Amino acid sequence: MKILFVAGDPKPERWTAPLQQRLPDADLQVWDPDGPATNADYAIVWNPPAELFEREPQLKAIFSLGAGVDKLVSLPAVARGLTVVRVEDAGMSVQMAEYVLYHLLESSRQMDLYRDQQAQAHWKIHRPIRREDWPVGVMGLGQIGSRVASALASLDYPVSGWARSPHQLAGVITYHGADGLGDFLSNTRVLVNTLPLTDHTRNLMDYDLLSQLQPGALVINVGRGEQLVDQDLLQALDEGHVARAVLDVFRQEPLPTDHPFWTHPKVTVTPHISARTLRETTIDQIADKIRAHADGKPVSGVVDIQRGY
Amino acid sequence: MKILFVAGDPKPERWTAPLQQRLPDADLQVWDPDGPATNADYAIVWNPPAELFEREPQLKAIFSLGAGVDKLVSLPAVARGLTVVRVEDAGMSVQMAEYVLYHLLESSRQMDLYRDQQAQAHWKIHRPIRREDWPVGVMGLGQIGSRVASALASLDYPVSGWARSPHQLAGVITYHGADGLGDFLSNTRVLVNTLPLTDHTRNLMDYDLLSQLQPGALVINVGRGEQLVDQDLLQALDEGHVARAVLDVFRQEPLPTDHPFWTHPKVTVTPHISARTLRETTIDQIADKIRAHADGKPVSGVVDIQRGY
Repeated sequence: MKILFVAGDPKPERWTAPLQQRLPDADLQVWDPDGPATNADYAIVWNPPAELFEREPQLKAIFSLGAGVDKLVSLPAVARGLTVVRVEDAGMSVQMAEYVLYHLLESSRQMDLYRDQQAQAHWKIHRPIRREDWPVGVMGLGQIGSRVASALASLDYPVSGWARSPHQLAGVITYHGADGLGDFLSNTRVLVNTLPLTDHTRNLMDYDLLSQLQPGALVINVGRGEQLVDQDLLQALDEGHVARAVLDVFRQEPLPTDHPFWTHPKVTVTPHISARTLRETTIDQIADKIRAHADGKPVSGVVDIQRGY
Repeated sequence: MKILFVAGDPKPERWTAPLQQRLPDADLQVWDPDGPATNADYAIVWNPPAELFEREPQLKAIFSLGAGVDKLVSLPAVARGLTVVRVEDAGMSVQMAEYVLYHLLESSRQMDLYRDQQAQAHWKIHRPIRREDWPVGVMGLGQIGSRVASALASLDYPVSGWARSPHQLAGVITYHGADGLGDFLSNTRVLVNTLPLTDHTRNLMDYDLLSQLQPGALVINVGRGEQLVDQDLLQALDEGHVARAVLDVFRQEPLPTDHPFWTHPKVTVTPHISARTLRETTIDQIADKIRAHADGKPVSGVVDIQRGY
């Protein structure tokens, strides 16, 4: 089989060499924007250019190196029926859990305050945490959201979850659908967004939604920037209903240097680092998926194009 | 029965009122330094004055509001056979786990670096974490140490534990005794101390011990200040073998304002806040223990005076 690697990595051999080891019979090539058609069976992609699909219309499936496939599902080739397969977890869910944990603890355990006190050599003990004051709500209960919710529950925070369809998760109260959103939000002070970007979730976190959170809310967005209405968050922060926002994803990345998030005292900005796919795990997964597809066996992680994830 | 409350709390009724509810038959009194002997059966104590034991030699047992009883076991009255009972967990172990997690993540996920980048509106993504680069070693595998070790293991860090006697803990490699210490240290980059203070653990973390850790070590002390040799840590930090220290406990508390830890760029100082006993849970526990003792039933948490914890 022929496999084309299309990921803009300056060192593509970091991927292709171990892939070749795992798929010794494969003919592996790296995408050349100026090169000829390769007649590939499969492409492994990260932000692929539109030309790929014009030049390689025979592709049987594309394998996304990321878990978020919102950009891929809107491609014309995909609308015509091209199979999209995404990596599942690949080390990301545990990283996401610890990113969320770190930033929750920064607020709930007042670690920022103690940091400031050290700068003044000031020894002062504040009231201990009451976990019931920090109910967490996780939007999205896929592999990532479930792991985030479980990690927080294991540290005795009250945790609820919300998703499009019903889910069950030990130690977590779950809500679903439009009907369940209001109750979910009113039980949430720490909102964690892990939802995939779809037409249903675009601009979901607007002023109306943020207003339904408990006062003094902490908003942590590790989903997609397009799910948050920036101006509405700024308004909720300035009005004080939202006390702090931790943002790892943005409508435009890198976040433009003049964006108010960078300097807002209540906003923490990180450069889309909450979870990274781990190369080795990803390569193992994709090799397995390609082999299964080539053998006509079931492949997990196939994207439901109508649903969008 | 008569119970004396000796804890220096400016609002002792926060303790005595709920205790009275749980022990309606008890005669509860608050320690008065200038008052007469009360002929109490039990005392509930936090840093009690020596006069307590002179004035109330008839005490059957004292109940410590803290888990660390190192100061109590050296009291002459205790040497003469007074029973000491300590609170067990009371909400502390989960707080300790999250304190350790937060500070580990600050280093392993480079959160301090990303915080500095935000201050410069600088979008730069660094290499993702490799968990195998952050093997954690937890000294002390009591209720607190076990919970810390399990929490870190559940986030996929390689975790080992060391204690005086053999322990078994799911997902954690355990070592014990003087013979096991060397192997434990050489497998550890992140050293977390949760040991009780005894003659065996005093000054345990000295230059020799720190030198056996993996290079770039992170030392987190949530045990007792007397277990760490301050000058030795400063030397290991300045030589670079230890990259960072996170200290919540100190030989003298509050930490004197001129102590070099306050301003050392590689030291994080917090004012003994890693874990606090929660009043309600503690009151429930002590009420149960007192009732059991009065009824001649077994009481958990009785301190082994020879062992020291």
